[in-house]
Amino acid sequence: MTENLAFKTFADNSRPVCILGLGLIGGSLMRDIAAAGRSVYGWNRSTKTVEAAQAEGFDVSADLTETLRRAESDDALVVLGVPVPALGFLLEAIAQHAPSVCFTDVTSVKAEVHDLVDQYGLTERFIGGHPMAGTADSGWAVTTEGLFTGAVWVVTYDNAMELGGPEGDKSPERAAVARRWLEGWVRVVKMAQLVGADVVACRAKKHDSAVARISHLPHILAEALAIAGDNGGPLALSLAASSFRDGTRVAGTAPDLVRAMCENNREALVEALDESIALLMKARRDLVSDEHDLKALAKEGFAARSRFEARAGRTKGDHTNRPIIRVNPGAPGWINQLRSAASMGAQINIGE
Amino acid sequence: MTENLAFKTFADNSRPVCILGLGLIGGSLMRDIAAAGRSVYGWNRSTKTVEAAQAEGFDVSADLTETLRRAESDDALVVLGVPVPALGFLLEAIAQHAPSVCFTDVTSVKAEVHDLVDQYGLTERFIGGHPMAGTADSGWAVTTEGLFTGAVWVVTYDNAMELGGPEGDKSPERAAVARRWLEGWVRVVKMAQLVGADVVACRAKKHDSAVARISHLPHILAEALAIAGDNGGPLALSLAASSFRDGTRVAGTAPDLVRAMCENNREALVEALDESIALLMKARRDLVSDEHDLKALAKEGFAARSRFEARAGRTKGDHTNRPIIRVNPGAPGWINQLRSAASMGAQINIGE
Repeated sequence: MTENLAFKTFADNSRPVCILGLGLIGGSLMRDIAAAGRSVYGWNRSTKTVEAAQAEGFDVSADLTETLRRAESDDALVVLGVPVPALGFLLEAIAQHAPSVCFTDVTSVKAEVHDLVDQYGLTERFIGGHPMAGTADSGWAVTTEGLFTGAVWVVTYDNAMELGGPEGDKSPERAAVARRWLEGWVRVVKMAQLVGADVVACRAKKHDSAVARISHLPHILAEALAIAGDNGGPLALSLAASSFRDGTRVAGTAPDLVRAMCENNREALVEALDESIALLMKARRDLVSDEHDLKALAKEGFAARSRFEARAGRTKGDHTNRPIIRVNPGAPGWINQLRSAASMGAQINIGE
Repeated sequence: MTENLAFKTFADNSRPVCILGLGLIGGSLMRDIAAAGRSVYGWNRSTKTVEAAQAEGFDVSADLTETLRRAESDDALVVLGVPVPALGFLLEAIAQHAPSVCFTDVTSVKAEVHDLVDQYGLTERFIGGHPMAGTADSGWAVTTEGLFTGAVWVVTYDNAMELGGPEGDKSPERAAVARRWLEGWVRVVKMAQLVGADVVACRAKKHDSAVARISHLPHILAEALAIAGDNGGPLALSLAASSFRDGTRVAGTAPDLVRAMCENNREALVEALDESIALLMKARRDLVSDEHDLKALAKEGFAARSRFEARAGRTKGDHTNRPIIRVNPGAPGWINQLRSAASMGAQINIGE
């Protein structure tokens, strides 16, 4: 029974996690894994960050090669904690110094990252990840325990389909590759659950299309709103209250991070942007028409927000109403389980 | 000395406030004035609200005519606590039953309200007001003490310019009208200060242009974002996190309130909307260009948000950095003091 064999391996959760890049996501992840009593170590390019993390007792190095060799030797799950523009550098190093580790990332685009990983020939060891817990802040100084509690952590399963999963008819060699990937996938899911995140599994393209709408578009609109408000001069800024404050919050994100997200998800973002431009132009026409009637926009916007609140709760920390679907990794039909869960936006549960 | 005479009258702050309409703003104002130990009473159209307020010990009636006659007899400052579409009804009643009271409003557009007041021939007794403390909620049930603490309360001074203020050369009759208006203006400012608000004085058109940018445009963008996100289906709504939550918060406002704000501030809103559409179309062009470079938008948006944070603090409740300018109502040159304060977005202080 292939799937039972696979499950047996999954139960082995004692191997360490190795985090490369200790910014808000990577650093907070390190804090949570350590707090859970699991083995975790990492690397950061900046010696200042390394020293700060070491001073707090974390097992952190500024030597990437050494860190990757260690990960290879103890079969750590490697987490790439850097933004998209820095990924190539780490993939190169993984190819060189850690030829068998499974690894995941934490960036907010997935199709482009899958493509990049493919260029380095590392697809069979890669599981795409995206913990949706960013804030406008960045760097080790803002890392915190509990960042992922209740946050969604997206895990892609594109490679399961390409590898065929352990279900398919394949040579023993390919079956071993598929099983190794599947084991890595389960380790990523369990790590996300360990730090309190809700795991949603979907394909890279579906992820990108969704986050273009609910994460990248909000950044673009926030930038435009901030500029249009600022154009009103000191009086406008003095009158600005909570609607402007909330609507522009993510415009406080470092411009390079905004660019890294949006520019790497162009296709899906342009589609979402076009929809919102069309909505705004329609609103403008309605405003200047004889009826000057914003009824349609106000009504549809309210209904849309109500659906979001029904699913995600009204304020941060509210109870969420996402369906939960149990999947059995590697069991017959498990990819159909994932597909079905993704289509209803369900979070998945793989049990213990 | 005209101004000393005026100041003497201002000191008389014992007369009551009469609030017509006890929704979020009017009801919360009633709570705060009562909590400060001042005399306050009011009216609401809904008997359910009247009964709820009475049950809490408030002096509230469902009889508008009787309430206005009372306001006239004890020279109350009348506050119109209703949205724009309901103003005409109250102005009609004031013209009939309270022929000498001074009154103010709390709506989010000012030029259109000034025009409406003028149509009822009540300009000489009107002071425009806009406490910027709305939330997405409405009705007596959500009223609360302390709603205005630290919020901006805009008070217009258009009528001072039209009446010429006590400074101008005028007949004793016109001087009395001007002095009466000025006294009402000071009462409105002191009421706002009493409940903890920061008063910013400006002309109606300047107010409307500013709030189009920092209050009405945020609502339009929030509606468009909510719809574009919802178009992504269950998966998108399940992945939506804080950037979507904050960016769509005000789409949860009752559609009629959004329409009342935006449709009554068409001209200024269309200007702000056009600017933001132009910014979004530029962003789209930049995204699909060979450089696919969002640098300009991300950089300018970040700079704009930084200027806002420098003025208003980073999170709600932070210390604000608005300049404060002392003005002496009715004293020679006081309108120039107000003009100067408005141009730098300063809050005003009229002392005791």
